[in-house]
Amino acid sequence: MSIDAVLAEIESTRAASLESLKAMLRIPSISAQPDHAGDCRACAGWIADCLRGCGFSPEIAETGGHPVVLAKNQFKPGRPTVLLYGHYDVQPPEPLDLWTTPPFEPTVRDGSIYARGACDDKGQVWAHLHALQVWARHGGVPVNLIVLIEGEEEIGSENLERFIQSRKADLAADVAVISDTGQFARGVPAITYGLRGLVYEEIFLTGAGHDLHSGLFGGAVPNPANILTEVLGRLHDRQSHKVLIPGFYDDVAELTEAERKEWQSLPFDEQGFLTELKLPGGHGEAGYSTIERKSARPTCDINGLTAGYQGHGAKTVIGSTASAKVSMRLVPNQDPVKIQTAFREFIRSRVPAGVKLELKNHGLAGPVIVSRDSDAMRRATDAMEQGFGKRPVLIRDGGSIPIVGLFKRELGLDTLLLGFGLPDDRIHSPNEKFGLDCLHQGTRTAAALWAHLAR
Amino acid sequence: MSIDAVLAEIESTRAASLESLKAMLRIPSISAQPDHAGDCRACAGWIADCLRGCGFSPEIAETGGHPVVLAKNQFKPGRPTVLLYGHYDVQPPEPLDLWTTPPFEPTVRDGSIYARGACDDKGQVWAHLHALQVWARHGGVPVNLIVLIEGEEEIGSENLERFIQSRKADLAADVAVISDTGQFARGVPAITYGLRGLVYEEIFLTGAGHDLHSGLFGGAVPNPANILTEVLGRLHDRQSHKVLIPGFYDDVAELTEAERKEWQSLPFDEQGFLTELKLPGGHGEAGYSTIERKSARPTCDINGLTAGYQGHGAKTVIGSTASAKVSMRLVPNQDPVKIQTAFREFIRSRVPAGVKLELKNHGLAGPVIVSRDSDAMRRATDAMEQGFGKRPVLIRDGGSIPIVGLFKRELGLDTLLLGFGLPDDRIHSPNEKFGLDCLHQGTRTAAALWAHLAR
Repeated sequence: MSIDAVLAEIESTRAASLESLKAMLRIPSISAQPDHAGDCRACAGWIADCLRGCGFSPEIAETGGHPVVLAKNQFKPGRPTVLLYGHYDVQPPEPLDLWTTPPFEPTVRDGSIYARGACDDKGQVWAHLHALQVWARHGGVPVNLIVLIEGEEEIGSENLERFIQSRKADLAADVAVISDTGQFARGVPAITYGLRGLVYEEIFLTGAGHDLHSGLFGGAVPNPANILTEVLGRLHDRQSHKVLIPGFYDDVAELTEAERKEWQSLPFDEQGFLTELKLPGGHGEAGYSTIERKSARPTCDINGLTAGYQGHGAKTVIGSTASAKVSMRLVPNQDPVKIQTAFREFIRSRVPAGVKLELKNHGLAGPVIVSRDSDAMRRATDAMEQGFGKRPVLIRDGGSIPIVGLFKRELGLDTLLLGFGLPDDRIHSPNEKFGLDCLHQGTRTAAALWAHLAR
Repeated sequence: MSIDAVLAEIESTRAASLESLKAMLRIPSISAQPDHAGDCRACAGWIADCLRGCGFSPEIAETGGHPVVLAKNQFKPGRPTVLLYGHYDVQPPEPLDLWTTPPFEPTVRDGSIYARGACDDKGQVWAHLHALQVWARHGGVPVNLIVLIEGEEEIGSENLERFIQSRKADLAADVAVISDTGQFARGVPAITYGLRGLVYEEIFLTGAGHDLHSGLFGGAVPNPANILTEVLGRLHDRQSHKVLIPGFYDDVAELTEAERKEWQSLPFDEQGFLTELKLPGGHGEAGYSTIERKSARPTCDINGLTAGYQGHGAKTVIGSTASAKVSMRLVPNQDPVKIQTAFREFIRSRVPAGVKLELKNHGLAGPVIVSRDSDAMRRATDAMEQGFGKRPVLIRDGGSIPIVGLFKRELGLDTLLLGFGLPDDRIHSPNEKFGLDCLHQGTRTAAALWAHLAR
């Protein structure tokens, strides 16, 4: 095996790699929207075809929801076994009118490719797939590799847990690898050792049996929209921005002094962060820095509000229903079930009699911390240094990758989180992008990783 | 003039009348939605054609928005002059999936016609138009009649004020008549002597310049949806349901003891009211009855909430914007400008720095009380008794008809509010309806009114 030859061929096939990524990005595999179920399946098929071309034996496995792609190379004893995970599903692209170019017509501008999923996670999955393609022409990767690409990450990986439980023997490995995080900044590659957990709930309130004229009925009927704001508007202290759900902070592990110091030395451009977001100043929990707020502190955010008339102009209506999507990000050692219970109690106790309350869960995941001192972490660090030409920093990420906890719990695996994207890649937002340099350095890292883990 | 002959012909032309009403209801004249501007204009033309057939000289007058239909019969000295007002525009029909039959495919079920605008206000306008058609075949109405049918009532009659100011000579009259209210209950015809006023505001909050991933950014950026609920959730006291905007109740005229007593004797079916609305119990401002709450007390209701992701399933997004439509119903002697100012101050003072606030007005109208003891009111009462076969009660209505205040202010006119609909006609809601009996009794009342006013 010659990693130098592999890296040289990655360099010489950049244009073809980009075209293949575009093909994957054109598939609108939006897992949350039922009418895109066929597109999710098509994307799974596209990936399976690609893996077959890399000498793997892919399987499109049913899960009850969107299928999983599971593929292995030929087993060779004595080599480490690695489970590579990614996801082919993407977030809904709405609001569509804010996209400069359509979300499923990938377009290169200013050195980046713009499309829904460009970074999260198709671009990063593609970096791995292209590395595998090149390795295939150089004798194949020098590890036993299990590739698992799922299609429900953006909707809470609902069916994956059962799938993993039912296929434990097929998934037995020494370590897991995921590229679904990011660099710390452009030119500051990073390995992520911490992730926040998630509790995602939807609240439905119903008042009268149908929409009512706000003149004829207003004042004499409960207005679910009024009540929704009264309940949700008390989730935060307006001065400290702390979450007011009783017990919310009980199990929160504070950052160590060592971490706080290390993070202070990271090249974080606070003003650049604010300028990119068009914000006049910092915002968040009193007593914590921006980095701490977005990666090591728990949150509660309303992700969606729906009530009454939302069209142009005025409608004097009292809507029969009002609903909200609310999610909480959790940090060690918060327990998602305990937090969900406390949240539901907070809501239930504040909705008055006369209004019907329904709650629906859209995701539960615990926070994650992986060891910074393992042999695999050192090898991954070396691989990333080779891929990016710079030693990575170790960071914690504010997002959630529930699969990391699942791998630990069900398969006993630690996960290496090697991310290639940038903080301003606008994942989950309009105009999501992925730098062509990130794609290239990521592909190099992905290729180098197998050499370093095999040594 | 023979009112008996007119009433007999109204009886014999009921079927044809219904077909004509259906034709008007098929025109989706939704004033709030710009892509229905052509339909509004078509509806104005339909009404003008109808009035021409009744011997009137109609004009479709431009206003800068949706046009006004203005028509007069041949002037005869010595007769009273009456200004008849109605509106041809309708509320948006959304949510469409809650309609049993489509909103613009009028359908008769169980003795009522179902369609958007069936009651508000096309059905009631049609009652008048059909009465005019019949009168035309009996020598014409015995009054000088000015018919003014506008197309922007549901969006605050924005352009009507200027139109009226510019056409005062054409609109000079002794009294105005509007049929845009309702009966007190089926079989309890009513004349309305009070209306609530309206302040309708829309609030737009903007945080970061684009939508953000709630994991990567949550905790470190302002979330406009959180802030919207924090601000709006403090509009009401949660125990007393009183509005907490400072000064909101300062100018409120309490009901007189006489009114409270009179209203207590009205045949109001509280349990029927709750059952129809599928509500387990009464709800509203402490210390007031349901009738008082919905017709003589001021309110503040959220009419629409929009933020973040509203589609199926979960999206972990912090939306860049959040907005709300909020309206207040006013009672004598609240001043709409004063209340608007107080509302805006309430909102402005609660939106934190770092979030951009914009406010937009969608309507301002003062509350109205008309004299219960005028000669015109007595004649109208007699006409309604002839139309319905039962003497009407006098009530106050919780809705707003800004034109009533405008007629008083600009033309010095008192308005007779003769309503034909029922409280459960679901105006502004899915499955709006108008009873065929109400249409018939309303047409009889409309016909009789001209005879009684001319006596």
